Amino acid sequence: MRISELAARSGVSVATIKYYLRERLLAPGSLTSATQASYDESHLQRLRLIRALISSAGLSIGQTRQVLQSVDSPPESIHELLGVAAAAVSRAATDRSSHERVHELMRHWGWRVDVKDCTSHAALAEALDALEAAGFELPDGMLEDYRGHMEAIAEREVASVPTDSPESAVRFVALGTVLIEPVLLALRRMAQQEASARRFEPGR
Amino acid sequence: MRISELAARSGVSVATIKYYLRERLLAPGSLTSATQASYDESHLQRLRLIRALISSAGLSIGQTRQVLQSVDSPPESIHELLGVAAAAVSRAATDRSSHERVHELMRHWGWRVDVKDCTSHAALAEALDALEAAGFELPDGMLEDYRGHMEAIAEREVASVPTDSPESAVRFVALGTVLIEPVLLALRRMAQQEASARRFEPGR
Repeated sequence: MRISELAARSGVSVATIKYYLRERLLAPGSLTSATQASYDESHLQRLRLIRALISSAGLSIGQTRQVLQSVDSPPESIHELLGVAAAAVSRAATDRSSHERVHELMRHWGWRVDVKDCTSHAALAEALDALEAAGFELPDGMLEDYRGHMEAIAEREVASVPTDSPESAVRFVALGTVLIEPVLLALRRMAQQEASARRFEPGR
Repeated sequence: MRISELAARSGVSVATIKYYLRERLLAPGSLTSATQASYDESHLQRLRLIRALISSAGLSIGQTRQVLQSVDSPPESIHELLGVAAAAVSRAATDRSSHERVHELMRHWGWRVDVKDCTSHAALAEALDALEAAGFELPDGMLEDYRGHMEAIAEREVASVPTDSPESAVRFVALGTVLIEPVLLALRRMAQQEASARRFEPGR
């Protein structure tokens, strides 16, 4: 197909496609004349992944390139591939020393402590530090409770990861991580309102 | 106590306390001479709440004033009081028409649809719209699953709300909402890593 059809089918403008070609996120089409190239389904699929990573998951061009490289030369295991996608959407790791406490918790829960991928450990360490700094004490057993629910959610999510292609696996993880977070947070606030109404206004 | 002692005990500088006094977030002390005022435990408690709302929950001075007003003239029910705190930490409501779908879901779940407090409904509507725009389809039953877990979490959280004073209830809700969100998100990402390792690298 021509670039104009690729644009129409992907919903990405011709100018943006040309930009992705220049940035080498998208492989060049095969030349059919000196000024025209032809694109196929693989270009369309790649374009959809690029859009997902940039527009929806909010990755930079550089981060997107990094994820795409791991799609093109996938590491041996899907677990490692998903790690690349997850790391790209995570904030940069901060102080490593502050989260030994988190590693302790993980060992207690029987979770693997993979120091190659500490970004979410750092995020948890920071969040627990912030609670402490605010003088907010979690009720007894609450952290365990949160962990249990998040474990059940993650279990089901990972079971749903499609494995037919590296593209679809990475797309699922990048989008699922970023786009589902606001869903969970909104549901929690709504559920709190509902629980508060039930506890404090049972009559209504 | 003098303002210097109030500063020492609260960890808030004298200059900042004076600023809060000017902004009428903190009631004036009782004058002991033309240039000195005396403060008591109620000032200390109020100061701690102000710090929690501003530094930890990230509220503006205006939002803090609004929450404090509802602490001083609490609405009839604690549920309404918590609503003021929850609304202050929520993002501004956006397009109201787009979330009729969320109200449908809530009715289906047996949740009260309180149109006075639509900020979190708007947040959920936006999040679901973003998923759709990205062409990300939630696996069957997944939203129900998320809802169930968030409901269980909220149930326990609301059961923990202290009711000894409006101050402590509001502090718990404002801090609990804002500071626990990153805890949950970090736990989910860590649990995903763990589940991914178990699914895709069972041998290790």
